[in-house]
Amino acid sequence: MTRSSLAYLFIAACCLNAPCLIAQSAAPWTISERSLPAPDHASAELAAAIANAPQPDPDAAASNYPQSDNQWLQMQTAARNQNPLPALEEALGVQIESSQIAGVTVYEITPMAIAPEHREHLFLHLHGGGYVLGGGPGAASEGAQISAAAGIRVVSVDYRMPPAAPFPAAVDDTIAVYRELLNEYSAGEIAIGGTSAGAGLSFAAVMQMKNLGLSVPGAVFAGTPWADLTDSSDSLHTNAGIDRILVSYDGLLQIGAELYADGEALTHPLISPLYGDFSGFPPTILISGTRDMLLSDTVRAHRKLLAEGVQADLHVFEGMSHAEYMIMPDIPEGQQTLAEISRFLKSHLD
Amino acid sequence: MTRSSLAYLFIAACCLNAPCLIAQSAAPWTISERSLPAPDHASAELAAAIANAPQPDPDAAASNYPQSDNQWLQMQTAARNQNPLPALEEALGVQIESSQIAGVTVYEITPMAIAPEHREHLFLHLHGGGYVLGGGPGAASEGAQISAAAGIRVVSVDYRMPPAAPFPAAVDDTIAVYRELLNEYSAGEIAIGGTSAGAGLSFAAVMQMKNLGLSVPGAVFAGTPWADLTDSSDSLHTNAGIDRILVSYDGLLQIGAELYADGEALTHPLISPLYGDFSGFPPTILISGTRDMLLSDTVRAHRKLLAEGVQADLHVFEGMSHAEYMIMPDIPEGQQTLAEISRFLKSHLD
Repeated sequence: MTRSSLAYLFIAACCLNAPCLIAQSAAPWTISERSLPAPDHASAELAAAIANAPQPDPDAAASNYPQSDNQWLQMQTAARNQNPLPALEEALGVQIESSQIAGVTVYEITPMAIAPEHREHLFLHLHGGGYVLGGGPGAASEGAQISAAAGIRVVSVDYRMPPAAPFPAAVDDTIAVYRELLNEYSAGEIAIGGTSAGAGLSFAAVMQMKNLGLSVPGAVFAGTPWADLTDSSDSLHTNAGIDRILVSYDGLLQIGAELYADGEALTHPLISPLYGDFSGFPPTILISGTRDMLLSDTVRAHRKLLAEGVQADLHVFEGMSHAEYMIMPDIPEGQQTLAEISRFLKSHLD
Repeated sequence: MTRSSLAYLFIAACCLNAPCLIAQSAAPWTISERSLPAPDHASAELAAAIANAPQPDPDAAASNYPQSDNQWLQMQTAARNQNPLPALEEALGVQIESSQIAGVTVYEITPMAIAPEHREHLFLHLHGGGYVLGGGPGAASEGAQISAAAGIRVVSVDYRMPPAAPFPAAVDDTIAVYRELLNEYSAGEIAIGGTSAGAGLSFAAVMQMKNLGLSVPGAVFAGTPWADLTDSSDSLHTNAGIDRILVSYDGLLQIGAELYADGEALTHPLISPLYGDFSGFPPTILISGTRDMLLSDTVRAHRKLLAEGVQADLHVFEGMSHAEYMIMPDIPEGQQTLAEISRFLKSHLD
């Protein structure tokens, strides 16, 4: 008896005296229609939000976004002309100033009280939105939450986006800002991070810092990172139609991937960092949910970091779709995420 | 503008100039039929195993187990009459002796070489199998893997099971063995753990130790813990028919829950520890997979531990169903799990 035949003892035990569990067709499998209740053990707030929400429609998701460059530019301009900053300042007790660093538009966020541990620290925030949404002053929103929760200064980068400026503009803008910040802070005093595309871009930026011989930051926050822009992570399939934020790859993700890569291979490591090298990364905290279509991207990044000996802490919330902790920062999943980020930064920044 | 209205900026941005992603019906949702490819980014070995496997059949899973007490007793007796121990010893270079501790049948496992760090340590192993399968000498299989990988002595408990001995027999047997071990080891020199029901039982045993005023062990390994025996964790629904090991709640889980609880409430904390108190727990390592029907039990336990300030490390493998790391210990997911357990024990035992 070999080790691998031993391995099947458990399966064999399940099949004793009974036909096996398995039917006849090989992959791809056809997963039949099922009824999905709201998650009983998400927070009461998240469970209620889901229970009261209309069901996401994958077909609508696929046709829900602008279909031309011009429509994208209009949508991005509309977001730039909104001004949520006064409301953010009032709600969170932070100060936000729009400025330029190395020619890049940024939002400099100062919390009401800087935590004693963070007097010399800075969080470099990168917004999400599939590389095509989330720009303009709204980019500062998640950064403002982190600033208020952790008591840390934040610079949130309003990086250039396609169709006007595809890859590598977002990486270049992030690196340009980081280089300037290194005049004021040591690398280990800076954290970098964000959610979704903002987390994938954080990974890409750290890889590019290594390429350029720059010291890497002291910590990374990777909230449900979009770290593989191809349609190949398993949870893109298993959680399609279940994740009520992303709903389907054939929507924001497919469009964002195509516009951002602009002809470059989607497996370029600075576009999809899961195809890159995680050695030498700083300590990283990763957040996802069981209903998240990017759960697979998150856990794949976690394992790659661990394989390189990097300290990497994974948190997965019950019943949570993509980025709901950020979209609804007041629900317990949002508050716990901010508390985990805060604790992580205090442990790992120099 | 309030904080919660800010929260919807991201969703609002997604819906600009376009109909929203959402259709009309509230929960429960109807998730339509979909095609599921094998996971590209599991290990090559796991991906191939899934790609070549026939599709699991939820209807067959529901009717696949014995339907009477007598049939269960026959199946359990058949497992007791197998003797995989010589093959396990040869494959793993361990020695396994069947013995009794406090009147409970156990398998005492000694690795070929005890790691220097573990000279004074013991791993108390509890097998899985839904509280109705996995007994007999095969109970020692996972314990033997851990013993060989970590270089640690293991005692694997062949606890009594229903229908002959329902709850609390398994908890009582575990506590009886633990009390005896405390004559030879300090609590902090002992780790406790297992997979599936073995992990849920490990949680229950630690809670019962607290009830009895016993010192708790130095570390817990909770491999995809069955920690809520009710049909309410979200991944029981989202991964039904996708997890190729458990396949459906209406099979081993439903039968095991009913036979084990034997009329007690399934929410009794020593039956479903997720309804219990995790304060004062030792450091805990948790393992699951993105296709695991007990992913939700795993992440719920992780968050409860963290909420009590317990050190708790979560690992989730891409595309992995329930307990496949244990069923196929030679695949990379199995080897990585054993390596993570080994590293964790070396960090946390006294």
